[in-house]
Amino acid sequence: MAPAFEQVPVPEPPHNTSDTVNNDAQADYKSRVTVVGSGNWGSVAAKLIASNTLKLNSFRDEVKMWVFEETLQSGEKLTDVINRTNENVKYLPGIKLGKNVIADPDLENAVKDADMLVFVTPHQFMEGICKRLVGKVREDAEAISLIKGMEVKMEGPCMISTLISEQLGINCSVLMGANIANEIAVEKFSEATIGYRDKREIAEQWNVVAIAAGFVDGLDMGNNTKAAIMRIGLKEMIAFSKLLFSSVRDSTFFESCGVADVITTCLGGRNRKVAEAFAKNGGKRSFDELEAEMLQGQKLQGVSTAREVYEVLSHRGWLELFPLFATVHDLCRSSSTIRHS
Amino acid sequence: MAPAFEQVPVPEPPHNTSDTVNNDAQADYKSRVTVVGSGNWGSVAAKLIASNTLKLNSFRDEVKMWVFEETLQSGEKLTDVINRTNENVKYLPGIKLGKNVIADPDLENAVKDADMLVFVTPHQFMEGICKRLVGKVREDAEAISLIKGMEVKMEGPCMISTLISEQLGINCSVLMGANIANEIAVEKFSEATIGYRDKREIAEQWNVVAIAAGFVDGLDMGNNTKAAIMRIGLKEMIAFSKLLFSSVRDSTFFESCGVADVITTCLGGRNRKVAEAFAKNGGKRSFDELEAEMLQGQKLQGVSTAREVYEVLSHRGWLELFPLFATVHDLCRSSSTIRHS
Repeated sequence: MAPAFEQVPVPEPPHNTSDTVNNDAQADYKSRVTVVGSGNWGSVAAKLIASNTLKLNSFRDEVKMWVFEETLQSGEKLTDVINRTNENVKYLPGIKLGKNVIADPDLENAVKDADMLVFVTPHQFMEGICKRLVGKVREDAEAISLIKGMEVKMEGPCMISTLISEQLGINCSVLMGANIANEIAVEKFSEATIGYRDKREIAEQWNVVAIAAGFVDGLDMGNNTKAAIMRIGLKEMIAFSKLLFSSVRDSTFFESCGVADVITTCLGGRNRKVAEAFAKNGGKRSFDELEAEMLQGQKLQGVSTAREVYEVLSHRGWLELFPLFATVHDLCRSSSTIRHS
Repeated sequence: MAPAFEQVPVPEPPHNTSDTVNNDAQADYKSRVTVVGSGNWGSVAAKLIASNTLKLNSFRDEVKMWVFEETLQSGEKLTDVINRTNENVKYLPGIKLGKNVIADPDLENAVKDADMLVFVTPHQFMEGICKRLVGKVREDAEAISLIKGMEVKMEGPCMISTLISEQLGINCSVLMGANIANEIAVEKFSEATIGYRDKREIAEQWNVVAIAAGFVDGLDMGNNTKAAIMRIGLKEMIAFSKLLFSSVRDSTFFESCGVADVITTCLGGRNRKVAEAFAKNGGKRSFDELEAEMLQGQKLQGVSTAREVYEVLSHRGWLELFPLFATVHDLCRSSSTIRHS
């Protein structure tokens, strides 16, 4: 079962019953999938996609996964270990990805034949990755982004899907939802929202709200307060999205990518967890320090997202409209001030 | 601090500075508050109101609280113990209500002089209470209902505030929000939504969703699933409300009485807790049995609300539109079938 991806609109395999022979090249064609990214969420995505390509006639079994190469403490390369053990020992330990997931440290090689590109890296790496991929992907490739957050440029924030679409000249859909990776990895039920074409969802930035929820937990303030913070975070997110993208509709926030994502992120996500530790320590230990200690190489998105959001709010004179977003950044910043002084 | 009630629109005390003498009878008049109900939430409400009446010149200090009389295991009457110890030892043990909370077992006596009536009983008792109060309350009294749920009558469901308003011929506002009573009792921050006049909120029935969330917890299904259940519950609640009351607006569900209430109820409420135990026991122990064991005399609303909602859905042919609501009732009912067979 691969619930998070079962809703992805994959092309139907051509009708090809046992008593007819169909020599049409189109019917025999099998799509190739490459996952760009191999962190916690990227590895989960590769695992689920690989279990689905085995079942679907219209896809090649093999799923390529581009891995940002690292040398492990053992001296081995991460890609070698993944290909030998079928496990991403660093970012998704204990979970078999499937033998048909092939780790590849060469970005261009990994994408060159792919019909379907699944982008799932930390958002701050995407601009650099896109630059490297210009002219290197198939013109008819379809992309889907599983990346949360936005790229903040001089001219304003830009959705990751728009970045991919514009830089690479290909269509890019979006998958968002209440999806904590480790739960999906062990095949617990999850739902997701797919945004495509004009109904593309805005890039969610729940991680800022999750930081605030973590503060509430760390200060032991109770469920009513946490619920209030989540509600206010939801309202600020809606307001922020509408100010930036006029086509955003309220109803989108009742989908999995909206209220359900804020809930699960604030209950179980890594941003919440580190923010809780931050508050418990009274701000005396920085986010960087806690991240290094608690996340084993995974990255915290919330602190940098809070800063990016703050920059947009500040630049446009909207700070007073977004007290929760602004305060989260202030608190995170105070920690780095303490650390550097 | 009494956050849940600080937003209640109480009349401003008359302007009366130290260097003027104001003999206007109106200015000296002090409103009297009676709380109708003394369960967990009723006791918390009385405590907060009593701390506010001490601070506000426009209110008498004394707050009457109608108590459904019970004889405790010690042989003492509950009202006598409350008035002697200032504590509702049965429904809010360990919390001082304030000396100015006066428990009264005589319903008519408790309400007869009140300018402000705060209704906070289990919803199934309200129709009987209203019948007893016809002609017994001041004509100019203002009521506010803190009661969740609806009264299901032959002619369809009826909001509790409407029931009060119509039966007693007085205005009735509504207070709803993300308010778990025990957290408010220890003065943790909470927010609430006040509905009044034409902007009166629909009576929320989150408890059905909380039962579903408790099942998820009991089956150890994880945060993504819980978030999905809460989201679907929210959508069914909105759809249900709109079908019953055409004036309901989406924006109401972004207030404390909406999304925040569903979150806190599903995180910390008693319905969630008992439903979790129900699921952990594989349905082998009934809700009635678990309620008696786990809640020390407090009542579970979710199971009866689920049945009432089911009756409305069934009567109107809407069952297929509300799979979550319908399934919660099916599961609760299966337990009572098991129990009685």
